[in-house]
Amino acid sequence: MEKEVLIFGHKNPDTDSITSSMVMENLERELGNKNAKAVRTGDVNKETQFVLNYLDMEAPELIGNINDNQEVILVDHNDAAQSADNIEHAKVLKVIDHHAVNFTISSPLYYRAEPVGCTATVLYELYNEKRIEITNKIATLMLSAIASDTLVLKSPTTTEVDKNAVRMLEKIAGLDLTKYGVDMLKAGTDISDFTPEQVINIDSKLFEQSNKKFRIAQVNTADLDSIFKNQSYFEQAINNDIQKENLDFYVFAATDIINSNSKIISLGNDAPVVEKAFGVSVDNHTAMLENVVSRKKQMLPPILDALNNNINL
Amino acid sequence: MEKEVLIFGHKNPDTDSITSSMVMENLERELGNKNAKAVRTGDVNKETQFVLNYLDMEAPELIGNINDNQEVILVDHNDAAQSADNIEHAKVLKVIDHHAVNFTISSPLYYRAEPVGCTATVLYELYNEKRIEITNKIATLMLSAIASDTLVLKSPTTTEVDKNAVRMLEKIAGLDLTKYGVDMLKAGTDISDFTPEQVINIDSKLFEQSNKKFRIAQVNTADLDSIFKNQSYFEQAINNDIQKENLDFYVFAATDIINSNSKIISLGNDAPVVEKAFGVSVDNHTAMLENVVSRKKQMLPPILDALNNNINL
Repeated sequence: MEKEVLIFGHKNPDTDSITSSMVMENLERELGNKNAKAVRTGDVNKETQFVLNYLDMEAPELIGNINDNQEVILVDHNDAAQSADNIEHAKVLKVIDHHAVNFTISSPLYYRAEPVGCTATVLYELYNEKRIEITNKIATLMLSAIASDTLVLKSPTTTEVDKNAVRMLEKIAGLDLTKYGVDMLKAGTDISDFTPEQVINIDSKLFEQSNKKFRIAQVNTADLDSIFKNQSYFEQAINNDIQKENLDFYVFAATDIINSNSKIISLGNDAPVVEKAFGVSVDNHTAMLENVVSRKKQMLPPILDALNNNINL
Repeated sequence: MEKEVLIFGHKNPDTDSITSSMVMENLERELGNKNAKAVRTGDVNKETQFVLNYLDMEAPELIGNINDNQEVILVDHNDAAQSADNIEHAKVLKVIDHHAVNFTISSPLYYRAEPVGCTATVLYELYNEKRIEITNKIATLMLSAIASDTLVLKSPTTTEVDKNAVRMLEKIAGLDLTKYGVDMLKAGTDISDFTPEQVINIDSKLFEQSNKKFRIAQVNTADLDSIFKNQSYFEQAINNDIQKENLDFYVFAATDIINSNSKIISLGNDAPVVEKAFGVSVDNHTAMLENVVSRKKQMLPPILDALNNNINL
């Protein structure tokens, strides 16, 4: 048997990380790489489970540590801090992504990133460039990822390229993204049976940049109050992680998908950086960030700029 | 007037860095970005001058420091250490490359790298994907870059993708690459009127990786003896650079384009790393590396591995 090439997204996988792994597996196989295999680096969240149920598909297999010299393809991330454990000793063949670049590897590889709203949009372009058919299921997986990452095209990360992809994919999938996407997002906001520890880990990303180690966690909600009435429990969960991982600070953002803003809790020694980053006053460890919904475009860059006072190339 | 978007390759530009800047300028303009402008970060070498003379074209304008917030597109490199001065404060819109990745930027961008022999091969694919016509001149610029980077398809960096591009481009350009490419390479090996300082700087790249600062310089030649009879002068020039730039070591490789091997001079405190990297004994600061012609694929990775004892992601 030929050795497998594992395809996976970031830890605490969101819908884009899971579905883009599956879409990339299909593309690689169509291009002749029969040993390509989508896997996942963490649990499937409720939003993604909604997509899998809708399509009657199984989630990719869960993996732990990857083996030395394992051949891998990264989707929806490039930063080792967000990748599978032992990624430092894997052989990265390709990266398909839409994030900022924080990557060092000593041999050339296929690296494709575009400043668009979603990895699935880049994959949509790859399918077209390679003239590979996009089936109904693949189109629905792509649409789900785009709806998730762009909050149904409402996030400022949304580009014309994403909108164009959605127009074409809606026809193939026979799906109205507005209706389907909102149902999907709402399924993802159900945290009624979650502990605060579980909520902050639904979509938490670790960053090790500008000589700081920090997390930005994000959860979508249609009801901010239901979260902040338990603020002290969330703070306890966050402080536990800060201690356990020796973090310089932790930003937890509850993003209101109805009103398109985010209320944050910021803790840790360097927590005051958020005041400089967002031009807000932090009161009782919280602040409201108006019109801020995107971690990638509206949270991480101002935080890095505040840490650096400039852009690091 | 709209502000310019500057397109440039690495310092000490080789033929790929110069011609790919020009080819990318044309692509951007065809795609509607009329303010795209190819420039260069250093002198045109004799090989590249042969290409420009053949096509009766002017070299791109020479630039020095770039301004804060200048919008730029990088071709044929991504590492800040090899880029224009003040690149840290520029706004990088796109990267088109075929090298290992050593890049950090805090906002998403278009990043396209492929493990192929030449940036021009990636550009050839982009023209096809975007369905932009490749004119006779553009095809000749691309062929020149490929012939230069792959030593007329003889370097181990050559891939099937490069060979396929050459087949198509030869038809468009009406050019036999073997004949044209060897004439071009030979024009590049004429160092009769160069000082040793000038020779080592024809194609010298600075690397700051694995906590070391070093240069690997390369010069093509059809006559190794003509270089090594002046070894002491070369050593003086190299030692001057080591002192001036505070380098940990310096590898100068004279690559015999006829017999496809490289004779190196290695100097500096960490110079012994080449023994471990290449499994050779260094005698009088020199060693012969049989079948080694590619800095990217055959020199840099073993040096980094020897420094690290593993691959850094």
